[in-house]
Amino acid sequence: MNKSMIRYILCKVLQFEGVFLLLPCIVSLIHKEKVGIIFFALGVCVFALGTFGSFFKPVSNIFYAREGFVTVSLSWILLSLVGAIPFVLTKEIPNYVDALFETVSGFTTTGSTILTDVEFLSKTVQFWRCFIIWIGGMGVLVFIMSILPLSGSYNMHLMRAESTGAEVGKLVPKVKNTAKILYGIYITLSVSMVISLMIAGLNFYDALILMFSTVGTGGFTRTNASLGAFSHPVQIITIVFMIMCGINFNAYFLIFMRKPKEVFKIEEVRAYFLFIILGVASITLSIRHLYPTLYEAFHKATFHTASIITTTGFTITDYEVWPSTAKFILIFFTIVGASAGSTAGGIKISRILIMIKTLKRELDHLTHPRSVRKVNLNGQAVSEETVKSVEAFLIAYVVTVIVSFLLLSVNGFDFTTTITSVLTTLGNVGPGLAGVGPAQNFAAYSQFSKLVLVFDMLAGRLEIFPLFVLMYAGTWKRN
Amino acid sequence: MNKSMIRYILCKVLQFEGVFLLLPCIVSLIHKEKVGIIFFALGVCVFALGTFGSFFKPVSNIFYAREGFVTVSLSWILLSLVGAIPFVLTKEIPNYVDALFETVSGFTTTGSTILTDVEFLSKTVQFWRCFIIWIGGMGVLVFIMSILPLSGSYNMHLMRAESTGAEVGKLVPKVKNTAKILYGIYITLSVSMVISLMIAGLNFYDALILMFSTVGTGGFTRTNASLGAFSHPVQIITIVFMIMCGINFNAYFLIFMRKPKEVFKIEEVRAYFLFIILGVASITLSIRHLYPTLYEAFHKATFHTASIITTTGFTITDYEVWPSTAKFILIFFTIVGASAGSTAGGIKISRILIMIKTLKRELDHLTHPRSVRKVNLNGQAVSEETVKSVEAFLIAYVVTVIVSFLLLSVNGFDFTTTITSVLTTLGNVGPGLAGVGPAQNFAAYSQFSKLVLVFDMLAGRLEIFPLFVLMYAGTWKRN
Repeated sequence: MNKSMIRYILCKVLQFEGVFLLLPCIVSLIHKEKVGIIFFALGVCVFALGTFGSFFKPVSNIFYAREGFVTVSLSWILLSLVGAIPFVLTKEIPNYVDALFETVSGFTTTGSTILTDVEFLSKTVQFWRCFIIWIGGMGVLVFIMSILPLSGSYNMHLMRAESTGAEVGKLVPKVKNTAKILYGIYITLSVSMVISLMIAGLNFYDALILMFSTVGTGGFTRTNASLGAFSHPVQIITIVFMIMCGINFNAYFLIFMRKPKEVFKIEEVRAYFLFIILGVASITLSIRHLYPTLYEAFHKATFHTASIITTTGFTITDYEVWPSTAKFILIFFTIVGASAGSTAGGIKISRILIMIKTLKRELDHLTHPRSVRKVNLNGQAVSEETVKSVEAFLIAYVVTVIVSFLLLSVNGFDFTTTITSVLTTLGNVGPGLAGVGPAQNFAAYSQFSKLVLVFDMLAGRLEIFPLFVLMYAGTWKRN
Repeated sequence: MNKSMIRYILCKVLQFEGVFLLLPCIVSLIHKEKVGIIFFALGVCVFALGTFGSFFKPVSNIFYAREGFVTVSLSWILLSLVGAIPFVLTKEIPNYVDALFETVSGFTTTGSTILTDVEFLSKTVQFWRCFIIWIGGMGVLVFIMSILPLSGSYNMHLMRAESTGAEVGKLVPKVKNTAKILYGIYITLSVSMVISLMIAGLNFYDALILMFSTVGTGGFTRTNASLGAFSHPVQIITIVFMIMCGINFNAYFLIFMRKPKEVFKIEEVRAYFLFIILGVASITLSIRHLYPTLYEAFHKATFHTASIITTTGFTITDYEVWPSTAKFILIFFTIVGASAGSTAGGIKISRILIMIKTLKRELDHLTHPRSVRKVNLNGQAVSEETVKSVEAFLIAYVVTVIVSFLLLSVNGFDFTTTITSVLTTLGNVGPGLAGVGPAQNFAAYSQFSKLVLVFDMLAGRLEIFPLFVLMYAGTWKRN
């Protein structure tokens, strides 16, 4: 294990977080909030610490996949541990575990909250809470790679460990340039959304933090009623951008390369829209009788389908009162999530497709034992290594769900609350059902349980393996 | 597809079911119940039909794995369709879908019931209801193979498709003899239990039907209070036999071969007892405060741990009122089940072990990419084919759970009721939580939903693939 290199990258991460911490100060200046001083002081300290630590160059350049996984895990844990400090120092979330929960929920773009009232937060803290979603959405190390003049084998390993989906492809030969293109797409989407929201009547601050939360598919808002507090046009803009951010960003690269026809050849894109259409249709049918007009039912169905499948987690109504069919479809989307290579969480549709095709292959094998077939996706054979990793991912997912579920049982909450707490945090969605339903929050959980959920959120964002690798004894053995 | 051979075996199955249907007539004769006439008439008709159909020998002996899967699926469906008729004709369960649910629940050793009151059933019908559990426990085709003077390649394919677990091994070179040994063990356990129960004070009839339900790990009883209506010694005997029937029957063969030390070298046996010990300990701790003495808490914890992990489903108390930890552990056991090669359902502990080891191998691969490791079980390498089949099984399991869950949502029942209905039927356990809790039943489900659950019970007993193969279009294509 190349510990000096890991230390070096972690210090670079600290430097960047130091800079991130300075941004809320601008909000403080504009809105004349005193809490900005805390962000300023902390930002400077963190930056200084990172600069000091990265002063000593790593002694070796050896960097394998395991170093990638360990670095990414530790970076996210460090980011969260530091990112939680301002909540405590400003006394807006005085308890450190609560603050950590909220910070991890932000960075991992989950959007679950321990706050029973979010409207009392200062504008500065509100900004930080939503800004970290935007940072976490595309990935922190991918961001650092796209900016720093680094090169070497570790770029690919870091990107593999931090990006989502079973297969992480490079759009262009250099990983660094791939990272730049991805951030270019991300910023384009972000700017477009801010402009759209301002046209719809929001002020810059509101448009900015709503954009952070939407484009990062996070789900925090500054209002207790979530998106229910916003106008109809704002809700529609949010639907559009949520859906756009759940698409594999490779699709935008293809459009940028003037190959828009290629986009709908990607099976994941087709399946994603199919899921949305089926979800909206079934939910509309299921809730039709609850609303005066068909349009209202359709609007609510579309909003929540988009919100949950993209793992954003905004709500415009308390869907706890909906019929079982509508609610269960939303839980199904909580598990599935949206596309690989997007900002969304969940198992990812491409993995689901590979799983279904693997199952089909097994049936072929059982019925025609001599047939040797590959699993194909988008007309190309998926490597056996990827198939194995997808299957191992499913095992890891089930193990994480079951262990978390059993650990959370000590709170004595009901079955629905407990299992949907696990599914929604592991899927980076936000709300669950019953005690953690759309009108509820995670405040009632014990400190220990919040740490279990913190683990689940990180596991969801990093797709489990980086954290498992970190904890696995074999990782730390010499070759 | 060798249709004439499938037809031939199905007719043999009918012949056997005809004979099975005559057995309840003995109960009728002893207890002077008129319903025996119905069983007699039906048994004769079914036997005649089977004899007539099997008069024409199959035109070809070609029999591959797919024929095995299709034959086993169709045999179980046919057995259930016919086995449900006496419930309707006797008017004790007048609705055919209800009767089918109850029959499938019996044959698959599930023990879920649609009856709100089981005590009004005649002794004859009660006997049939429990007897089919005993038949289904070890497998119908394995039974036929052990008796009929058949030979040929299809024995192995039928045994593979009907037996449980990822790897179906032959105990002795000939499949037919393996089947005989398995039934020998089964009958020894059955006779021992009847004798034990009679020593504990039960009459022969009560001992017999309780034995059917226990040794088959089914869960039907003739009392509404399940095992709660029986004495403490009977409960303890039941605990012992439930646990014994959850062990891989290979273990008994080893004991019979005077190699008892080998038994505890089987990892599945060790894991099974570890699960039971941990389950009993945690549940006892969790429910201690609800009962006057530690022993009572321990007894109730032991009974329900044994009942659920072996997927029997007997109850002695309404554990719906237990704390979440205790209930969630029982749900965990509902999913896991007991050992491969036993009469129990669930995913099976050996599959869980292979999954965990596959996950460990993936972590090894991620951290040391050049390492090439095999998955080992009991000191021997598990074939890649088996590893793949276990992973495909997990996918098939998850798909079945999710699709069933969404289909059942139309009943409008709560989340807990719906998901535990699926888990308990697919695990062949019996009770779930909330609306299908230990003091509840499945009567409230719609006819369509009952058919979904019928599918789940069959899928659970046959370990999903035979039914998937039956429905898979590729099965019916020519090579």
